[in-house]
Amino acid sequence: MKWPISIAFAAALAMGSTALAKDDPLPSWNDGPAKAAVLAFVQAVTTEGTSNFAPVEKRIAVFDNDGTLWAEKPVYVQLLFAVDRVKALAPKHPEWKTNEPFASILKGDLKGALAGGKHAVAEIVAASHAGITTEEFTAVVRDWIATARHPETGRLYTEMVYQPMLELLDHLRANDFETFIVSGGGVDFMRVFAESVYGIPPHQVMGSSMKVKFETVDGLPALVKQPELNFVDDGPGKPVGIQMQIGRKPIAAFGNSDGDLEMLQYTCLPPGPDFCLYVHHTDAEREWAYDRDSAVGKLDKGLDAAAANGWTVVDMAKDWSVVFPE
Amino acid sequence: MKWPISIAFAAALAMGSTALAKDDPLPSWNDGPAKAAVLAFVQAVTTEGTSNFAPVEKRIAVFDNDGTLWAEKPVYVQLLFAVDRVKALAPKHPEWKTNEPFASILKGDLKGALAGGKHAVAEIVAASHAGITTEEFTAVVRDWIATARHPETGRLYTEMVYQPMLELLDHLRANDFETFIVSGGGVDFMRVFAESVYGIPPHQVMGSSMKVKFETVDGLPALVKQPELNFVDDGPGKPVGIQMQIGRKPIAAFGNSDGDLEMLQYTCLPPGPDFCLYVHHTDAEREWAYDRDSAVGKLDKGLDAAAANGWTVVDMAKDWSVVFPE
Repeated sequence: MKWPISIAFAAALAMGSTALAKDDPLPSWNDGPAKAAVLAFVQAVTTEGTSNFAPVEKRIAVFDNDGTLWAEKPVYVQLLFAVDRVKALAPKHPEWKTNEPFASILKGDLKGALAGGKHAVAEIVAASHAGITTEEFTAVVRDWIATARHPETGRLYTEMVYQPMLELLDHLRANDFETFIVSGGGVDFMRVFAESVYGIPPHQVMGSSMKVKFETVDGLPALVKQPELNFVDDGPGKPVGIQMQIGRKPIAAFGNSDGDLEMLQYTCLPPGPDFCLYVHHTDAEREWAYDRDSAVGKLDKGLDAAAANGWTVVDMAKDWSVVFPE
Repeated sequence: MKWPISIAFAAALAMGSTALAKDDPLPSWNDGPAKAAVLAFVQAVTTEGTSNFAPVEKRIAVFDNDGTLWAEKPVYVQLLFAVDRVKALAPKHPEWKTNEPFASILKGDLKGALAGGKHAVAEIVAASHAGITTEEFTAVVRDWIATARHPETGRLYTEMVYQPMLELLDHLRANDFETFIVSGGGVDFMRVFAESVYGIPPHQVMGSSMKVKFETVDGLPALVKQPELNFVDDGPGKPVGIQMQIGRKPIAAFGNSDGDLEMLQYTCLPPGPDFCLYVHHTDAEREWAYDRDSAVGKLDKGLDAAAANGWTVVDMAKDWSVVFPE
């Protein structure tokens, strides 16, 4: 009877602790190269006395948000928030009935509203994200995210986070990693739910931002969001933002689009140890399938870079047994 | 024999645990109103079931650096670094022998160099802080701070930190506060020593910054410091920086100059609980004495605001039994 036991043992060794469901830190990940690579990396950097050991202060992991931690289809959640906010503010702006891009939004024609390109987006963002204090904005987002539902699934947006990534965040933190969000999304928007949903406190959330001014409002000092862009945390802005805010090169980076490419390149610069992973949206049944030709979350150069550099690519359909929390 | 015991007990109660030196978290603070106020605040926000209790995620404390955590006289340490860096780079810049402000620096005439005002400072900062990668800059500062000595005391600059403030940082962290630096000084400069000296990791250090670009250097991606100002983390910039990076109002703020005033105003906005403290430099013997008329670390409006708002003011000569670590 020795034979089956030794096989089970060898299999357990090969998969780390994952053969024992009870001890599996990533139960929603199917056994396969992606899961094995994640576990092997964490094991390596936390094993003292090896060349890949990373002291605790170097254990910094950065995550994109849209498409990496939660769904980004049919369009970014924050854009849907902006649309709802424009609708809510419309009674105070009768001129929006005839002025674009607002007129299209109020008619329910998002595509028409976005036809105005960057200028239209800037107008929508300014109207929906500026002219109020940071505290007021937080309250508005908190109310919205507690009730708004995804147009296709009917779920709350905070229920459209990826269960396997929640497990990965927990596993990294259990191994003394500090986890950060580095997203092209608005920082004030994400901070409202990042702590309760991802376990990531506001000061570890980075994103794009509008300028903020210290002003006197009703006789008291307040921070007022200005209708002017401050920082775009996308593409080459991601490593720049990491330097500005973290001040230390991460050793693990997780993304899903070409906008994350520079962050992964920077994180996986020699010398290691380091780990770079792309989530590849391949699951049209449980989520969405898209990559090189997608308007939202385009993953083209990134796929090539992953292949060239040996980065880990999650095949969502194959590698995840669960996508959204049950 | 009951009488002396009850007096000792009453005194111990009045001073919290400070009557027992063994349990005193702030041994370098003399008993007095400043120490009592600090201890009472920490006690209050960590006592569950009271109206002043603050849950752990709200326990955010922000500290200015120059003049609050370490000495800033005769001039800011970073300016002395810049001077040394200009001298070190001079052989590569023969034109500096005749061009101001460099010519004055090379002659040892700092006052003359600064006579050119903001323009001169910008030139000195650009020459000494830009044109290299962030990694190279870190290495340069690390080498300098390990050996450079204060012109008057002969101490290493990292030995010119305030022992009572180190104890305060520890005491706050022991009570589950997250401690942050919010300084007008350069963020990349402070991050080199803030972790080892103050126990504050790079991502909890905020400061002024130059722009950074993601570029290819020697065929590899790198972050290169640009000779262009990105953010001034002083005055109204401090609450703005706090919002950008922490995303949550602190409940405790510590400063020493008018440049910290807006940070204290913002932190001590109702509703509380909150705590604001100014370090007042009153100790010409062990440190320096300066306030309303000082060019470096001017404390004028701040002193008035402290009196008007009931903020705690540390009288360095009276309230601190030790200034620098022994």
